[in-house]
Amino acid sequence: MQLHLSTWQEVEAYLQRSRGIVIPIGSTEQHGPNGLIGTDAICAEVFAREVGRAADAMVGPTVNVGMAQHHLGFAGSVTLRPSTLIAVIRDMVASLGRHGFARFFFLNGHGGNVATVTAAFSEIYAEASLQAGLPNGLDLRCTIRNWWEAPSAKRLSRELFAGEEGSHATPSEVSVTYFAYPEAAKSVGEMTPRVAPFGGFTDAADYRRRFPDGRIGSNPALATAAHGKTIVDAVVPELVDAYRSFLAA
Amino acid sequence: MQLHLSTWQEVEAYLQRSRGIVIPIGSTEQHGPNGLIGTDAICAEVFAREVGRAADAMVGPTVNVGMAQHHLGFAGSVTLRPSTLIAVIRDMVASLGRHGFARFFFLNGHGGNVATVTAAFSEIYAEASLQAGLPNGLDLRCTIRNWWEAPSAKRLSRELFAGEEGSHATPSEVSVTYFAYPEAAKSVGEMTPRVAPFGGFTDAADYRRRFPDGRIGSNPALATAAHGKTIVDAVVPELVDAYRSFLAA
Amino acid sequence: MQLHLSTWQEVEAYLQRSRGIVIPIGSTEQHGPNGLIGTDAICAEVFAREVGRAADAMVGPTVNVGMAQHHLGFAGSVTLRPSTLIAVIRDMVASLGRHGFARFFFLNGHGGNVATVTAAFSEIYAEASLQAGLPNGLDLRCTIRNWWEAPSAKRLSRELFAGEEGSHATPSEVSVTYFAYPEAAKSVGEMTPRVAPFGGFTDAADYRRRFPDGRIGSNPALATAAHGKTIVDAVVPELVDAYRSFLAA
Amino acid sequence: MQLHLSTWQEVEAYLQRSRGIVIPIGSTEQHGPNGLIGTDAICAEVFAREVGRAADAMVGPTVNVGMAQHHLGFAGSVTLRPSTLIAVIRDMVASLGRHGFARFFFLNGHGGNVATVTAAFSEIYAEASLQAGLPNGLDLRCTIRNWWEAPSAKRLSRELFAGEEGSHATPSEVSVTYFAYPEAAKSVGEMTPRVAPFGGFTDAADYRRRFPDGRIGSNPALATAAHGKTIVDAVVPELVDAYRSFLAA
Amino acid sequence: MQLHLSTWQEVEAYLQRSRGIVIPIGSTEQHGPNGLIGTDAICAEVFAREVGRAADAMVGPTVNVGMAQHHLGFAGSVTLRPSTLIAVIRDMVASLGRHGFARFFFLNGHGGNVATVTAAFSEIYAEASLQAGLPNGLDLRCTIRNWWEAPSAKRLSRELFAGEEGSHATPSEVSVTYFAYPEAAKSVGEMTPRVAPFGGFTDAADYRRRFPDGRIGSNPALATAAHGKTIVDAVVPELVDAYRSFLAA
Amino acid sequence: MQLHLSTWQEVEAYLQRSRGIVIPIGSTEQHGPNGLIGTDAICAEVFAREVGRAADAMVGPTVNVGMAQHHLGFAGSVTLRPSTLIAVIRDMVASLGRHGFARFFFLNGHGGNVATVTAAFSEIYAEASLQAGLPNGLDLRCTIRNWWEAPSAKRLSRELFAGEEGSHATPSEVSVTYFAYPEAAKSVGEMTPRVAPFGGFTDAADYRRRFPDGRIGSNPALATAAHGKTIVDAVVPELVDAYRSFLAA
Repeated sequence: MQLHLSTWQEVEAYLQRSRGIVIPIGSTEQHGPNGLIGTDAICAEVFAREVGRAADAMVGPTVNVGMAQHHLGFAGSVTLRPSTLIAVIRDMVASLGRHGFARFFFLNGHGGNVATVTAAFSEIYAEASLQAGLPNGLDLRCTIRNWWEAPSAKRLSRELFAGEEGSHATPSEVSVTYFAYPEAAKSVGEMTPRVAPFGGFTDAADYRRRFPDGRIGSNPALATAAHGKTIVDAVVPELVDAYRSFLAA
Repeated sequence: MQLHLSTWQEVEAYLQRSRGIVIPIGSTEQHGPNGLIGTDAICAEVFAREVGRAADAMVGPTVNVGMAQHHLGFAGSVTLRPSTLIAVIRDMVASLGRHGFARFFFLNGHGGNVATVTAAFSEIYAEASLQAGLPNGLDLRCTIRNWWEAPSAKRLSRELFAGEEGSHATPSEVSVTYFAYPEAAKSVGEMTPRVAPFGGFTDAADYRRRFPDGRIGSNPALATAAHGKTIVDAVVPELVDAYRSFLAA
Repeated sequence: MQLHLSTWQEVEAYLQRSRGIVIPIGSTEQHGPNGLIGTDAICAEVFAREVGRAADAMVGPTVNVGMAQHHLGFAGSVTLRPSTLIAVIRDMVASLGRHGFARFFFLNGHGGNVATVTAAFSEIYAEASLQAGLPNGLDLRCTIRNWWEAPSAKRLSRELFAGEEGSHATPSEVSVTYFAYPEAAKSVGEMTPRVAPFGGFTDAADYRRRFPDGRIGSNPALATAAHGKTIVDAVVPELVDAYRSFLAA
Repeated sequence: MQLHLSTWQEVEAYLQRSRGIVIPIGSTEQHGPNGLIGTDAICAEVFAREVGRAADAMVGPTVNVGMAQHHLGFAGSVTLRPSTLIAVIRDMVASLGRHGFARFFFLNGHGGNVATVTAAFSEIYAEASLQAGLPNGLDLRCTIRNWWEAPSAKRLSRELFAGEEGSHATPSEVSVTYFAYPEAAKSVGEMTPRVAPFGGFTDAADYRRRFPDGRIGSNPALATAAHGKTIVDAVVPELVDAYRSFLAA
Repeated sequence: MQLHLSTWQEVEAYLQRSRGIVIPIGSTEQHGPNGLIGTDAICAEVFAREVGRAADAMVGPTVNVGMAQHHLGFAGSVTLRPSTLIAVIRDMVASLGRHGFARFFFLNGHGGNVATVTAAFSEIYAEASLQAGLPNGLDLRCTIRNWWEAPSAKRLSRELFAGEEGSHATPSEVSVTYFAYPEAAKSVGEMTPRVAPFGGFTDAADYRRRFPDGRIGSNPALATAAHGKTIVDAVVPELVDAYRSFLAA
Repeated sequence: MQLHLSTWQEVEAYLQRSRGIVIPIGSTEQHGPNGLIGTDAICAEVFAREVGRAADAMVGPTVNVGMAQHHLGFAGSVTLRPSTLIAVIRDMVASLGRHGFARFFFLNGHGGNVATVTAAFSEIYAEASLQAGLPNGLDLRCTIRNWWEAPSAKRLSRELFAGEEGSHATPSEVSVTYFAYPEAAKSVGEMTPRVAPFGGFTDAADYRRRFPDGRIGSNPALATAAHGKTIVDAVVPELVDAYRSFLAA
């Protein structure tokens, strides 16, 4: 059940049976020579929609711009500063919390979001924790889950792209987007080097110096829509389980 | 050309021929008994995609949560506070401005965004204006355009829904979303009263008291996907003209 | 009744009979070759004082610095950034709201304030709207009214300055300030061009490039104190009506 | 020379001969049974205007709402939170600094402003201090001066109101406002107790508990317009000297 | 009793007998040729610990970085901007207030903190003052006390360092740190000039231009650990009295 | 070399040979029945001091209050909200960066800090990344290292406290503080249950409900000063290696 395709009465009815919501969160940032700038948001959205379908979960609006300051050396990348993203998460949770949503499952497509979104949860909790006259606190729980850390995502990465997955512009994520938007798949041939270098980074200039075509440790030339389907089919049930456990906790 | 379906190299190539970008901005908020919560974001996205296609314009990520505090009395509505939305717009424009984008055409689907987005533009300009050592300022220009104010949108509203358009949960906007997502069209029959009351409002509680089913002045039971298509077909060329004039200004 | 000339006991007595307050809001910014930098604040103050007198309304402190980033290319112009002005409005409304004021009529002298002040109202309302446990919301209502949009202001502009009113440093507003401060009236003779160009603008450098002497579309050489008196006499009763309607809404 | 009564060309001419500006800063807050709510802003404005006249100094817009949280227990009092007032001062100084003003003399009418305005100056300086690549810093200097600390203000207080000056709603400040606005002088007779209690305070509720009619340590029944004139005449030359020393420092 | 060396159960027990807490606040900034960068934090910590011991007072965590923007021209100096320090103080007081602490005695080692910390107190109080529905306010009281203003600190300064105390990098404060950390005492011999110049300052560049070795008006070559002990022994009882009076107020 | 015990000239000399700085960061929060409230700050400080000694590294001021909102249900716990802690880190890094420090090694004693401090680094980098005219970015690098994740810390935990380490109020961290402050070691005997429960948490009320005496998964009754010494001796060389690698990266 997708929030943006529902009426408010349908949401009200949903809240009679569940307090949970899945919120896809991604990023708008370069993903190497053949990866889409929307990769992280697309992946989050695809997984969230499937989880919503399988678990009868409400799926909220996609946070499609995340914390991606390090990618700003590449055209088209967009970032929210951490302080802005914290405010966004806080307002979204406060809005939905007012209606009775109380279990926020952020389904994440971008590693760069994790620290900031986790800090945002603390910012939300801190408002309750700092109130002396609120002995019972908020009854509100937030979590962030990265789809690529599902066991089958790791297994398939090894099987399909052994040793060439890397950590940015990975063949796994590019495959998922090609499955979702086959018409947007790019043919750029072999990349040089075939597998990109690994390493850390600081700001955008530093990142670009170290990773000239944007990839980290990956060979996304291996990506195909078919692999994407395989990954989605395998990972969704595990995310459904994670969501159900979260609701039950 | 859609940013999220492009690679950074494709964006770089685009920037050789244009500095313009269309950014759809909507809202996630109740739209009465048969309107989708995503109505404003969906409309903005539909129009932006078509303008992008017709004008070879880059289309950026949809701002799908806007300033909708007054709708929070209805389940599923989400707001950013104005101060948060200002920060979001500022970060997006700063990110894209770094790459060379310089003409930001926010294609808007929600009246409640106008004041805040306009204030955000001033916040952006003020950073340049307050710098003594910056005689030439920013070469950066932002505008916000409401699709429903296009001449043909107004004309079609009169022709198709004469007197029953209203100002929230209008048959025009609901029609556009039914055209975009026919599978999500709702059948709720006649509404009572057929045409909702008009009026002003302040916060969420006040809004709900005045407009118990969420509509303002409208009869969205008149909405159909066919009317949506008519509206989109008529309005897109006018928005294309507006975008081209904006680039040329 | 002017707040700054009253004692707290007089205010307490006023609150027994009314919850309304008129707050003049203007700007401190260039107004062309013969317009005063305080034009917008002076106009707002003059109209507010007269409305206060005629309607037995409390008149609060003048917000004399507004959102004027685009005028910073001209010496003496001062701006608050939108985010600052939002904080100012919020604190003023919260302070006065604590005493029982509940109808805030911002009488505005500067077009550049409208978006930001409207966003400030939403920021105030949003605090109530985001609280789940506040079913009845705030009983607090804010509005902003531009004196130059009163019907007789428009009519007199046509009659007295036909075609040469423009939109910044207008003969109407300059006349009102000459009426209020005849000793400060400037004699600068004819301007070149007689009528300034029209157009849009972004930041301060852009504004100055387009409007070299600060005027937009106007010929303020037509301004006289006598015209100012005519305008004030005609407009005040309409603003009184607007204030009374606002209280009654 | 008053900024709000000048044109931008006149300001430009002024800046050829001076970089100084006097900015009156006061407050909008209760001043006991016979003191005006605008007392602190009125005093600051009166002294600033006279200093401006005597020293050929530019006088900027009055900051008429200050930091007065402790007075909010009395109707009509208005506060900016410290964080808001810091932003206001910063924006005003940045705006005027852009034009070439570089010596900011805040002429203060309210003790409660001192800490926050001083913190605002540090906030402004810190922006320069934190920039590694700015070896010469800002050439910008701010000061805040309390008119009641001028030697003759202290002397006259002893002579005219010996022992009954107090520290809030003092006969000195009330006298100055009666001199400025004789028509607003209040006749409320003797007060009980004649001299108000002294002491510290925290928030608004605490303040009201300790000082039930708003005065601290004072007997403002002694205030007269004539005393106000005596004070203004004596203090202005000392403030002029202070301003000139500040410019020369 | 030191908070950081206590368990939460010990703190709970303490709160049965007292609501007071001493919070040392200093700075991390240059202190001239022989003064330690931690001078102000060390002094605050030494005095707070002794007051805690003598008065059975809880001693909270040292705020060791304060508002020191003007010292940033000298290596090793660190500042919080005033807006940041206000947030820090507010969060600390809110945290401790939740547990029942209600009398906050900030024992200060750095003059540059006073304005900002005082503004922070107002920011805290303002939250209560701005709430209409909070008739009794906070029962929470904050104060800031500078150890060097204790009567015996002034007396000893005159006796031990007559005329060469100055106002930054003073022999008194350097002595206290040498007493606390004798192993860190520096031998740099005579300074040139023996007594540093006096004067005001703005930002870091201005400060360094005026005070090339960092001292203001002082001759810290006179500092010894023995003098430090004399000062601590004399001042602590006075601070204990001040703390007890504060609790009793 | 400790910053707070150095003069600015000594810091200047240090900067000739190194751009690195170790900044201890901890927390002020409950640590169960026998753990000190300052545990995390004490541990960070102890390890940082030893690393500083062994690696000739500058050791900056301890951040002794961190992000600990979840502990506010226990007396004495203090938190900074994430947004405040981000501002603190940013100001500290900006201050030290101005002097030439460029490698910031935050030696962390509190798991709850990691997300927020990581977000703070992104906030710092983002300022550079968002500037179009800064092709080379900042040459500034930050990292956060948790001492308990050093290989020997993990090994010793297994050897000394097998199975009873847990994740909050662990015998390892309590041992380190007892080694540092043997006089503050607490004797509270066996705890009930001997090993505390494991689990997640949200805000302070939730935490206290789940972990009634504050521990998570641990049996800190096993802590001794001798174990603390063993841990410090083993871990410091590994942290020195980590610091040196960081400088060399």
